[in-house]
Amino acid sequence: MGKRNLFLMSSSAMHGFGYLEHAQTDMTSFFKNNSVQKVLFIPYALTDYDGYTERVGSVLKRWGFSCNGIHTFPDPVKAVENAEAIYIGGGNTFLLLRTLYEKQLVGPIRDRVLNHGVPYVGSSAGTNVATRSIQTTNDMPIVHTPTFDALALVPFNINPHYTEPDANVKHMGETRQERIKQFHELNDAPVLGLREGTTLFVDGDNATLIGPPTEMPGICYDARLFRKNQEPVEYAPLSSLSFLLKE
Amino acid sequence: MGKRNLFLMSSSAMHGFGYLEHAQTDMTSFFKNNSVQKVLFIPYALTDYDGYTERVGSVLKRWGFSCNGIHTFPDPVKAVENAEAIYIGGGNTFLLLRTLYEKQLVGPIRDRVLNHGVPYVGSSAGTNVATRSIQTTNDMPIVHTPTFDALALVPFNINPHYTEPDANVKHMGETRQERIKQFHELNDAPVLGLREGTTLFVDGDNATLIGPPTEMPGICYDARLFRKNQEPVEYAPLSSLSFLLKE
Repeated sequence: MGKRNLFLMSSSAMHGFGYLEHAQTDMTSFFKNNSVQKVLFIPYALTDYDGYTERVGSVLKRWGFSCNGIHTFPDPVKAVENAEAIYIGGGNTFLLLRTLYEKQLVGPIRDRVLNHGVPYVGSSAGTNVATRSIQTTNDMPIVHTPTFDALALVPFNINPHYTEPDANVKHMGETRQERIKQFHELNDAPVLGLREGTTLFVDGDNATLIGPPTEMPGICYDARLFRKNQEPVEYAPLSSLSFLLKE
Repeated sequence: MGKRNLFLMSSSAMHGFGYLEHAQTDMTSFFKNNSVQKVLFIPYALTDYDGYTERVGSVLKRWGFSCNGIHTFPDPVKAVENAEAIYIGGGNTFLLLRTLYEKQLVGPIRDRVLNHGVPYVGSSAGTNVATRSIQTTNDMPIVHTPTFDALALVPFNINPHYTEPDANVKHMGETRQERIKQFHELNDAPVLGLREGTTLFVDGDNATLIGPPTEMPGICYDARLFRKNQEPVEYAPLSSLSFLLKE
């Protein structure tokens, strides 16, 4: 896995920042360090491919990169094979995974990223599908998928937008932590709860948690790691999480 | 559908009340009006069948009803066929639906409820599976299911534990309303957002929203109805929602 280069964002938005802006410095470095000028954007998690590609592309353009939606290429598999970098945006994780399978892109993306070092950016649903399965998504199952197995660029699960209930909220529905506990009653993989504004950066066999450029007071940016039958553990930004890649 | 008798709770718990207590008066009437003394409880949405049945059964016993877990019968299909009333509890909706299919109970429950008037109580996941599909669940897909089609005791979808974000919360993840909008980009069925503490009562071709016995100040108990390409509409407790059964 010496070539793996992943930039897995919890979210495309963070309170106090414009769209994607919290990630500007780090994503720019990520692309530049990998000599990327042109980004292939995969908008399958939403239904308005043109609008979504324009939204992300206009930000990337401001930062000095060009961006094309995969739907504008006649052959999406070829587009992946020729991509300098692959960016999968958020939206609905079930819709995204189903479309990746329909277009027969799961194998090609996995090959390019793991065997050829093509840089991969994901946010939210795009981060979910980068992991071993989409079983810890927060999204509604608006379409059926043949399997929940995903790209498996990392061997664990992520819960993006990880959050805990405000102590004042009267809502009694299951918390995120309780839902992940239910996952672990029937599954073994570790689950990394990635809070908004944070990114998991993976370079080969090294994984590091990256925090936002400025921290909002009173908001936690630690990642929370859940393991079956164990108490969760918090990791602050800049912590190494490389051990998760070796399990 | 003259015989259909459904008591579909948003949740088994409501802020300010003990477990199930907010529903005591109405559920007691529901069982008594249907001459029910013995309830068949289906605990498949959680993994601890005994503990879950004991938890619900001890409450029902206090109210004057006996309760048996379906897992204690040698033949679950026969247990359904002989049941005076069926109560499916909450937990994980995917696990629940998968187990109902594995035990070949979807057809028999549907038959007993729709053709023989056997009273049906659901809470949370048990309410989700009573509808046309589980596509508007809030749960994580911890197990794969062959389909998202459910018991279809009513021809629309429900989102249990429906809630809106507190204005002070800094979380940027999709709101419940945004998730339901994504559902409607790809599906046509109406979605009824049932807030905690409320119940949809269905008697044949009549459906009525039931509120809690006491309302907590500042908390909304209206049901919010979402339709494809339309603005959502709120319905206060005691509103008739019978029109949803006819679409």
